[in-house]
Amino acid sequence: MAMAAIATLSLSLHAAEKTFRLKLAETWGPNTPILGDATKNMAKLANEMSNGRLQIRIDSANKHKAPLGIFDMVKSGQYDLGHSSSYYWKGKVPNTLYFSSMPFGMMTTEQYAWFYRGGGMELMQEVYAPHNLLSFPGGNSDIQMGGWFKKEIKSIDDLQGLKMRIPGFAGEVFAKVGAKPTNIAPGELFTSLERGTIDALEWVGPAFDLRMGFQKIAPFYYTAWHEPGSETQFLVNKKTWDKLPADLQIILETAFRVAAFDMYVQAIDANANSWSSMLAEYPDIKVRDFPPEVLSTMRLATEQLLEEQASQDPLARKIIESQANYLQKVRGWTDISTKAYLNNN
Amino acid sequence: MAMAAIATLSLSLHAAEKTFRLKLAETWGPNTPILGDATKNMAKLANEMSNGRLQIRIDSANKHKAPLGIFDMVKSGQYDLGHSSSYYWKGKVPNTLYFSSMPFGMMTTEQYAWFYRGGGMELMQEVYAPHNLLSFPGGNSDIQMGGWFKKEIKSIDDLQGLKMRIPGFAGEVFAKVGAKPTNIAPGELFTSLERGTIDALEWVGPAFDLRMGFQKIAPFYYTAWHEPGSETQFLVNKKTWDKLPADLQIILETAFRVAAFDMYVQAIDANANSWSSMLAEYPDIKVRDFPPEVLSTMRLATEQLLEEQASQDPLARKIIESQANYLQKVRGWTDISTKAYLNNN
Repeated sequence: MAMAAIATLSLSLHAAEKTFRLKLAETWGPNTPILGDATKNMAKLANEMSNGRLQIRIDSANKHKAPLGIFDMVKSGQYDLGHSSSYYWKGKVPNTLYFSSMPFGMMTTEQYAWFYRGGGMELMQEVYAPHNLLSFPGGNSDIQMGGWFKKEIKSIDDLQGLKMRIPGFAGEVFAKVGAKPTNIAPGELFTSLERGTIDALEWVGPAFDLRMGFQKIAPFYYTAWHEPGSETQFLVNKKTWDKLPADLQIILETAFRVAAFDMYVQAIDANANSWSSMLAEYPDIKVRDFPPEVLSTMRLATEQLLEEQASQDPLARKIIESQANYLQKVRGWTDISTKAYLNNN
Repeated sequence: MAMAAIATLSLSLHAAEKTFRLKLAETWGPNTPILGDATKNMAKLANEMSNGRLQIRIDSANKHKAPLGIFDMVKSGQYDLGHSSSYYWKGKVPNTLYFSSMPFGMMTTEQYAWFYRGGGMELMQEVYAPHNLLSFPGGNSDIQMGGWFKKEIKSIDDLQGLKMRIPGFAGEVFAKVGAKPTNIAPGELFTSLERGTIDALEWVGPAFDLRMGFQKIAPFYYTAWHEPGSETQFLVNKKTWDKLPADLQIILETAFRVAAFDMYVQAIDANANSWSSMLAEYPDIKVRDFPPEVLSTMRLATEQLLEEQASQDPLARKIIESQANYLQKVRGWTDISTKAYLNNN
């Protein structure tokens, strides 16, 4: 074997075997169930499929101290990857709002169809590209419940002045119909509800709610309206992405996709288990739908807020219309399939 | 560099770069939409993630001439991989029935939760292992409609003697309630329905039904009961699997998983589009639910048939009970989340 050949062989071996060490920052605290499992599953899968060439270190919020700084830290390159939720960046980049879950919007599988088949992925990249970022679906927490209420909501009057922990866009909708939305740190939620600082709160769904104990002090559990399929996100620094060879790009993208799907499946299973436990332990929980009048008022408020956003920004209008059109089409099918099946069984 | 080192280097390069050429047989004809896309997507993804080390050749039914011979051809090693549906093997291995979709059973996402979190994968491998096979979910065609009927079904009397194309286990249920199930080749379905050889038929859902034209001659389109989430399967010859290095095993398994998820997402999108087109072109289609009396009679017949199977085989009982228990738990959650949301919107 000639020395030149050896040199070439050695070089190509080196390129094929080069290890990429990436750093990921997640919004969640260490070992957060479901959300934190998604990042661990992703890193493990990327490592195994790349035969060790992708090494991903995960820093949780206790390490980087900036749970809502993921966007900036990945944009700047301080971290290569992030795991968070798109709607957290609404104050910074308003159009990021649309890629988590919208009130009265698509459910999880409908929204996946929009992302992958209805133009959603392209619109998401259009929003993130100017910030040196790529964004991918990061796993779904399943339908979120409407929250825990101390008193039953019988009409829109019962919402007037009601103090509720409900942050973000859903909070704006709630304010528009006369309630008083607020945000409170997770560790203070139970006490705030117990002492009457708030009258109601929304958290996630049974899997996340059970350990919080809200059912002990606010027995009315309202069904979903504001987050029918909350998707998290994987963020990637574009310069990091461009440095990866093609096979590692596709391995990483696939690891995101499988981890996202697995998180959704895990959330369904965890919600089913937790709801079953809740019902057994706390038979006094009262599941309620908001009355039709309340729902139609909140829906109108949602549409008005969206129209305000659309009128200020052509890209916002494009996204809002894409979602509305896709929802109308896919819900037509959901109604004669899923809805009919569930109502007949 | 010593010669021994060069030899080692050369050897490890060779092992890392070894190409595995696998042959896959699919039940479907060439270029079948959705089903055939799943195998192509899987092969492309496995190739890209392995940097070309996994080369998968796909033979459609026109090539191997044995659409319902996939189980045998993969078991014997004539093919390394297969793409088909588990319930096709019921006549050969009765317990394969339970891994596609069951009447009055779990919907797609509920069933994925059972597969991946509720013990379903383990039970499926227990059924396939004695046949030198591994089986993985292969993509879902979404909820299947109850079928096209020339006349409305108003009571169980209307099913007596009704000639319907409905094969497999659902056909057995239909027979038990007094109808006359039959199977007819796809190419003869339209003519059989037109000429009255059959009174009704079930096919898949809007995405597959639209081009068949049944809506022109049988205007009653019944909602789902018999296949609420039809899963296909990837089959793998166990000896082929054991020969693959660990990273290619995980790449192949991941490619199955992503292709399966993508097929489900594609089916949702295609059903939504096709249903929207159907409604616009054929406004006389009448969507109907079977009356409660008919549904409860068919449900009872299903339970009786399952009890017969369980009483003959402990493994059948284990699977049937696992599914029933998981369904009860997960449906409790689906009812307060998905069902409530759809009924409120």
